[in-house]
Amino acid sequence: MVSTAAHDKHEARGTGFKHLTPTREAIQTLLQKLSVKLESEEVPVDSSLGRVLAEDIISTVDLPPFDKAAMDGFAVKAEDTYSSSTSTPITLQLVSELQIEDIPNRIVEKNQCSSIVTGGQLPRGADAVVMVEYSKQLNETTIEISSEVRPGENVSRLGEDVSKGTVVLKHGTSILPQDIGILSGIGVQRVSVIRKPRVAILSSGNELRDDSNPKGKTADVNRPMLIAACQELGCTTIDLGIVVDHHDAIRDKLLKGIQLADVILVTAGTSVGPADIVPKVIDSLGKPGMLVHGVAMRPSMPTGVAAVEGKPIVSLPGYPVSAYLAFIEIVHPLIGHLLRTRFLPPPTVKAKLNRRIAGILGSRTYIRVKISEERDGLVAEPIRTSGAGILSSLVQSNGFIIVPETVEGYEEGQLVEVQLFRPPGNTT
Amino acid sequence: MVSTAAHDKHEARGTGFKHLTPTREAIQTLLQKLSVKLESEEVPVDSSLGRVLAEDIISTVDLPPFDKAAMDGFAVKAEDTYSSSTSTPITLQLVSELQIEDIPNRIVEKNQCSSIVTGGQLPRGADAVVMVEYSKQLNETTIEISSEVRPGENVSRLGEDVSKGTVVLKHGTSILPQDIGILSGIGVQRVSVIRKPRVAILSSGNELRDDSNPKGKTADVNRPMLIAACQELGCTTIDLGIVVDHHDAIRDKLLKGIQLADVILVTAGTSVGPADIVPKVIDSLGKPGMLVHGVAMRPSMPTGVAAVEGKPIVSLPGYPVSAYLAFIEIVHPLIGHLLRTRFLPPPTVKAKLNRRIAGILGSRTYIRVKISEERDGLVAEPIRTSGAGILSSLVQSNGFIIVPETVEGYEEGQLVEVQLFRPPGNTT
Repeated sequence: MVSTAAHDKHEARGTGFKHLTPTREAIQTLLQKLSVKLESEEVPVDSSLGRVLAEDIISTVDLPPFDKAAMDGFAVKAEDTYSSSTSTPITLQLVSELQIEDIPNRIVEKNQCSSIVTGGQLPRGADAVVMVEYSKQLNETTIEISSEVRPGENVSRLGEDVSKGTVVLKHGTSILPQDIGILSGIGVQRVSVIRKPRVAILSSGNELRDDSNPKGKTADVNRPMLIAACQELGCTTIDLGIVVDHHDAIRDKLLKGIQLADVILVTAGTSVGPADIVPKVIDSLGKPGMLVHGVAMRPSMPTGVAAVEGKPIVSLPGYPVSAYLAFIEIVHPLIGHLLRTRFLPPPTVKAKLNRRIAGILGSRTYIRVKISEERDGLVAEPIRTSGAGILSSLVQSNGFIIVPETVEGYEEGQLVEVQLFRPPGNTT
Repeated sequence: MVSTAAHDKHEARGTGFKHLTPTREAIQTLLQKLSVKLESEEVPVDSSLGRVLAEDIISTVDLPPFDKAAMDGFAVKAEDTYSSSTSTPITLQLVSELQIEDIPNRIVEKNQCSSIVTGGQLPRGADAVVMVEYSKQLNETTIEISSEVRPGENVSRLGEDVSKGTVVLKHGTSILPQDIGILSGIGVQRVSVIRKPRVAILSSGNELRDDSNPKGKTADVNRPMLIAACQELGCTTIDLGIVVDHHDAIRDKLLKGIQLADVILVTAGTSVGPADIVPKVIDSLGKPGMLVHGVAMRPSMPTGVAAVEGKPIVSLPGYPVSAYLAFIEIVHPLIGHLLRTRFLPPPTVKAKLNRRIAGILGSRTYIRVKISEERDGLVAEPIRTSGAGILSSLVQSNGFIIVPETVEGYEEGQLVEVQLFRPPGNTT
């Protein structure tokens, strides 16, 4: 049994799509029609985690701001130590004892030294540190040194971490904890970041129930799911609620979305049946309207992408699995583009298929799998489901396998790559 | 040239650690001494993204709540259609026309049918749907059917997505967008989740500058970095500020941490020099105190783990790269344990080394690398740096290679796995 049969049948009707566009091409087509340009805004560095830098950060300071000891020991002129060893130690005059917080005021002259601790500022005249292990204090002012050091040895040089005037972080960087560390280190307190994209989310369907449609018999799952998915990507969300399958009602909601948001997502009504009026409504909103309708992926085939007034509208299928996968394949890169950044790729694992799966030539096929940890490695079990309407298949799975357009399928026992959204062990 | 030499020397002093504990063993030792048990709290489902379920979610409803059409077409008794085909069609009496929101009140009897749309509730008596493509309306009440269907065909069965009484999501699940979708679908509005771990973070060092220590000459990088790292894991953070290298001052801060937090992190002062007093202070706080001091990883070797009053204290090295890596190796799994969940593994890529790297036998060695996209695949360039004090090495890199305890190193040209924290292309 092959797990893709049913959900494809659901979407692939006799009155189906004449042409399917690869998702990558759909995105490229869409991007060319957009005029959304997110402004930048200033935020405190300690609130900048995960935000995207709008500017290059150029350091105005050196880090460290002075030569400092990288070891506990004695600051010396390296040349004084040449040829010293355990058998032929030399002696130096101790002229100061420096603590980590001290600003040294005594120059180390020939045959002199200062005691120093890790992180302490190197006194002028000294160019190396002899580790404490290679020293012995003979009396109050005399230190025996039994190892030679080269200039710069055991010294953290001024600017060796960050050199004044260099670019520390580039625009487009998604800020990580270590970036916040270095920004703090070079004294930057506020940074300019791309403002969060605003995404408006609308669910359509006469069957959906809420206060505005008490006749509906079904709770909406797509909107709460997509709102969370947008938040996970660092977006602000605008909940447009649900709307019945009525041209003017959908039109009003989409116009509101275009007015308020940078990106508009609408679910359902995007196939090619008589009730699938969303593409027509989008085309009525303005130019260019629908750009692509029908993408070469299964499920999610009825997905459409459109641009109106330079803003992207993504018309997602009503089946929640289809909506989810189209979100990952199309909305995810779209948001990355608006934020002018790259997202980290998803985690993947290699797992052995416990039964054969079939792709559909010409479309990328997404097979949800459950991963289990067996003695000889991970095993991927394709989830048996009657269709893309079965949201529990995304809840019971750990991730999915993508069968490319040109591959007929994968055999039982084959090692395949699984794109994970849930760690193994966390499923029902 | 080998990139690990210098940062190891910085940490591996002559007066160094006698025994190094593998990180996994250090964590196991720590977990056995903990009594922290995070309570649960209720949150609205639409605020539960990324939170960890404290309870199994058992559905009190069936989803779908009734048999429904999975296609536009005609609801029929399957047996009426047997043997019908394009060449031998049958006719059925049309007894009702159902919209998606309708509650059907007319039973479909033998040789009858109702028109139906995708998602519409199946009328009683019908057990299958004939797709509209295989039908023709002959007159107002007569439908010609030219294809046979089996019972259940083109029908989404009551409970086929979620069956009443089954576990939809298990405790320990980190809530994903699709989980929020299904919770909304089954009418769950609030869920019980593990409360966020509270992590207190303290930086020690006479050299650190703030209002409490104006003599300090260096801005603190570890604390802002670790606060962000904790937030990334879904923790609440308590900023304990900085403290000078003084026994009682450190002791007071750590006691405050134990009082307020579930986990205490302190950086610096954890090596084996005379100024490294943090382990002694921890031992003065109560039993069992320090459990492990010195872990088998480079950098980060001076890391210590301790338990006081059943709470974990992790004594992280002052070098920011060491603090960061020890956070990933030790604090990350510790937080996962407290949250009673598993985190997703990090994303990885395979890349070709552009020069040889050396590990250190007996320790896991972490080599920061920069990834570039070359014509024939990804190339990993080990970052040349003089030590674990160089935070810019974490800022300029895309991830790291781990050389296991038993491996001497990897050769130039070898394909290695890189654990990514930053997508290729986003570095200076």
